[in-house]
Amino acid sequence: MVGDPTTPVHAVAPLDRAGPGDLSYFSGAKYAARFAASRAGVTLVSPDLAEHPGPPVRIVVERPADAMLLVLPKLYRPPERVPAIHPTARIGRGVQLPPDATIDAYAVIGDGAQIGAHVWIGSHCVIGPGAVLGDDVQLHPGVTVCSGTQLGHRVAVHSGARLGNDGFGYVFRDGRHTRIPHVGRCLIGDDVEIGANTTIDRGSVDDTVVGAGTKIDNLVHIAHNVQIGRLCLVMAQVGIAGSVRVEDGAILAGQVGVSGHVVIGARATLAGQAGVFGNVPAGETWSGYPARPHREATRAHAAMFKLPQIIRSLERLAEAEQRARSEKAASAPDRQPTQTGTP
Amino acid sequence: MVGDPTTPVHAVAPLDRAGPGDLSYFSGAKYAARFAASRAGVTLVSPDLAEHPGPPVRIVVERPADAMLLVLPKLYRPPERVPAIHPTARIGRGVQLPPDATIDAYAVIGDGAQIGAHVWIGSHCVIGPGAVLGDDVQLHPGVTVCSGTQLGHRVAVHSGARLGNDGFGYVFRDGRHTRIPHVGRCLIGDDVEIGANTTIDRGSVDDTVVGAGTKIDNLVHIAHNVQIGRLCLVMAQVGIAGSVRVEDGAILAGQVGVSGHVVIGARATLAGQAGVFGNVPAGETWSGYPARPHREATRAHAAMFKLPQIIRSLERLAEAEQRARSEKAASAPDRQPTQTGTP
Amino acid sequence: MVGDPTTPVHAVAPLDRAGPGDLSYFSGAKYAARFAASRAGVTLVSPDLAEHPGPPVRIVVERPADAMLLVLPKLYRPPERVPAIHPTARIGRGVQLPPDATIDAYAVIGDGAQIGAHVWIGSHCVIGPGAVLGDDVQLHPGVTVCSGTQLGHRVAVHSGARLGNDGFGYVFRDGRHTRIPHVGRCLIGDDVEIGANTTIDRGSVDDTVVGAGTKIDNLVHIAHNVQIGRLCLVMAQVGIAGSVRVEDGAILAGQVGVSGHVVIGARATLAGQAGVFGNVPAGETWSGYPARPHREATRAHAAMFKLPQIIRSLERLAEAEQRARSEKAASAPDRQPTQTGTP
Repeated sequence: MVGDPTTPVHAVAPLDRAGPGDLSYFSGAKYAARFAASRAGVTLVSPDLAEHPGPPVRIVVERPADAMLLVLPKLYRPPERVPAIHPTARIGRGVQLPPDATIDAYAVIGDGAQIGAHVWIGSHCVIGPGAVLGDDVQLHPGVTVCSGTQLGHRVAVHSGARLGNDGFGYVFRDGRHTRIPHVGRCLIGDDVEIGANTTIDRGSVDDTVVGAGTKIDNLVHIAHNVQIGRLCLVMAQVGIAGSVRVEDGAILAGQVGVSGHVVIGARATLAGQAGVFGNVPAGETWSGYPARPHREATRAHAAMFKLPQIIRSLERLAEAEQRARSEKAASAPDRQPTQTGTP
Repeated sequence: MVGDPTTPVHAVAPLDRAGPGDLSYFSGAKYAARFAASRAGVTLVSPDLAEHPGPPVRIVVERPADAMLLVLPKLYRPPERVPAIHPTARIGRGVQLPPDATIDAYAVIGDGAQIGAHVWIGSHCVIGPGAVLGDDVQLHPGVTVCSGTQLGHRVAVHSGARLGNDGFGYVFRDGRHTRIPHVGRCLIGDDVEIGANTTIDRGSVDDTVVGAGTKIDNLVHIAHNVQIGRLCLVMAQVGIAGSVRVEDGAILAGQVGVSGHVVIGARATLAGQAGVFGNVPAGETWSGYPARPHREATRAHAAMFKLPQIIRSLERLAEAEQRARSEKAASAPDRQPTQTGTP
Repeated sequence: MVGDPTTPVHAVAPLDRAGPGDLSYFSGAKYAARFAASRAGVTLVSPDLAEHPGPPVRIVVERPADAMLLVLPKLYRPPERVPAIHPTARIGRGVQLPPDATIDAYAVIGDGAQIGAHVWIGSHCVIGPGAVLGDDVQLHPGVTVCSGTQLGHRVAVHSGARLGNDGFGYVFRDGRHTRIPHVGRCLIGDDVEIGANTTIDRGSVDDTVVGAGTKIDNLVHIAHNVQIGRLCLVMAQVGIAGSVRVEDGAILAGQVGVSGHVVIGARATLAGQAGVFGNVPAGETWSGYPARPHREATRAHAAMFKLPQIIRSLERLAEAEQRARSEKAASAPDRQPTQTGTP
């Protein structure tokens, strides 16, 4: 630490917006001008940048950005929740609202829904009849929670997510696609977080399940009867087809697609855009299309980009081989070639 | 059938939730404990599991899960629709509401919109001025139907779908992207179903059209001027660029992307994540990136993963060829090699 | 021009819907029947179709569809905005509404939000506390603008877009994923357009930024700390991971995925479905998975589809080589082969 170690900070901000009460960080020489002009109270600085001119109070640390993320929760003040039922909120018959709930404007709660303690239901959310929300659930504005959906405790759902819709299931009969009714549930475990505009369908007969502590990003699609384990990370725009099982701790990077009935083993990692058409063993990292073990896929892709050159080599080899045969034939006219076709 | 053939059931449920009035199914030995403990009134059981201990009344059938799906529609009670215009619904000028419509809380219907018989418009739906909804249309909560959009009869639209927005069309002029106004319509045929958070843009001058009986899953994007035929299946997260034509009965699996102005022939199938940059003939199955006939693509991908090994073979061949030449040169020193370069 | 050059038109329409006051266009022989029956006042016709029977007043032009797009803005009448604050709109404390704003039914504006002149805030939009909207901003129905978000002037946001949500950032500690608070902003420049159901997250400490004049299509995901330059085009279902920088004028086609911390250079183009895992130089066109310069990728893909045939050639070559060795060994029994293994 350089400078007055008693300097108090109450919040965090980037260099250009930080004031005397803020903690900031300086992690690349390209930000030197911003650092020089910054008014940050305290700055986290990497060792190689520690001598740059700038605000006097500095903490020298190996990776300032990572350190910042670690200290953030201590300085961050989350939006304050004021317990209140907005007069425009529509509450269905038989709904017992806990005394300290926050229900924002124009929220609609269906008959018989069960609402846990300390919930925060944002503006324009719609809770279907009989749906269940655990304690400390937070729904951001415009979320739909359909009938048959149950959210555990401390579940956070971002704007526009749709939970518990009927899945995409039809049988083709008499010249038309006839919908299969969906009577399974959509069960979301404790501490799950669900991103903006994500969709999670209810099960057909069995349930769609997301395990405790799993985090799901924006615009993800999770189909009917999918079972996701605990502590998984499912990144933006991932699509998981029906009846897939994703085991505990698996990580699915952005835009991954998993086809129906596949099993993704515990702690497996799927790289971005992977297209998965078969089971992935526990603990392995797979990538590519169709997805394979990452090392294999990387080598195959690298080889693919060398292919045009390989083809040229091959053609030269074939020519050389042919020439060799011709020469041999010429130099040994008394022997009959046993094979005339060449590749 | 084993047990009392007159046992009545009124609903369906999975083994662990089924009671005496429910039909359930038992299709894998791993669910034996659940079956043993189940209180299901009647259970569909596969032949190999027919002797397991469990509820006495059983119907032995080859594939219990499939059989369940077939019987589901007969036992399923859909959510009951109560005809009523919620007092908070805002109805525009010139809108004639049919007497038995259901318009839920906070729905907003624009001036001059045409609303068919028996419609169910969910909470927070917004119908633009002049939009048209056929008979028996069901809009789940939070759907936007823009001006210029027409829905046929029995169309079902899930939460958060956006129909008839202006498409993504610009001309670059005077150093900026200038929007092309969209005056074409968005026409959705009878019996179409549209998934949650899906977007279908209106046409620029011509119309965007989805044919009767086509089913569209969640988070699908359909751009301006796209023409989709009848009885197609478009699965989750598919993206269809402008002016594409998809003919009757085509199936687009999840995350497929189709680039602009392409034609997907009748009853063609595109496998998951296929990236389509050219026309696909009727009846064919294509896959991969760039998409090709499925057999060809499968072989190419299989070969790609053998490539690193092929390259090693090739190198060994080249070495062998070179060695052969050297040996020959050594054993025939009187002959001048006509070629010295080797691959 | 053929026919009366003083014929007035006031709007545009396709051939089958055009009336005497409309401009239409006829660009393909397959539409000849429609042209013959059309009542269009004026039609743009390509030279090869100029003699077809149809409405008398025609302008012969090389590419009628393109010409139509150019003339559209002059004939198009956008939806009329009526300045009015709907009585159901909820306006937070400290919000100064400009006198000519349009705030539609059930919109919710949080405390201290700043609202520019001539804004149009659609039904059910939610503006978070302290968010900033510039002049002439248009929010279509159901848009969420979270706290910490600032929109420049003339920004248009389509239905269901979610701006400024917390990003997907966690640290794994004590056996759980702990959320990193997000205190960075979401800054949207002047003249930006954002498509339906698109999500743009706020920054963690730094800001997420979209530069002036950039256009973003439907269902796009833009993660925390992403910096997008000016005049870019980002097409439907693109996903951009955290801290990516996209420089001015870049074009990202549909379903492109860009992994974290990558730089897409100015005026670079990424083809549809490209999976980008490294920096892309300015001005280049890249495609494929993993993305490479387009020519290279095209050649590699073409070669990949020839692979099965190449493998056969290779096998024949190897056989020929082996045969050659055997023959040589047979014809020269006195020489000891120096190598016995063959590929």
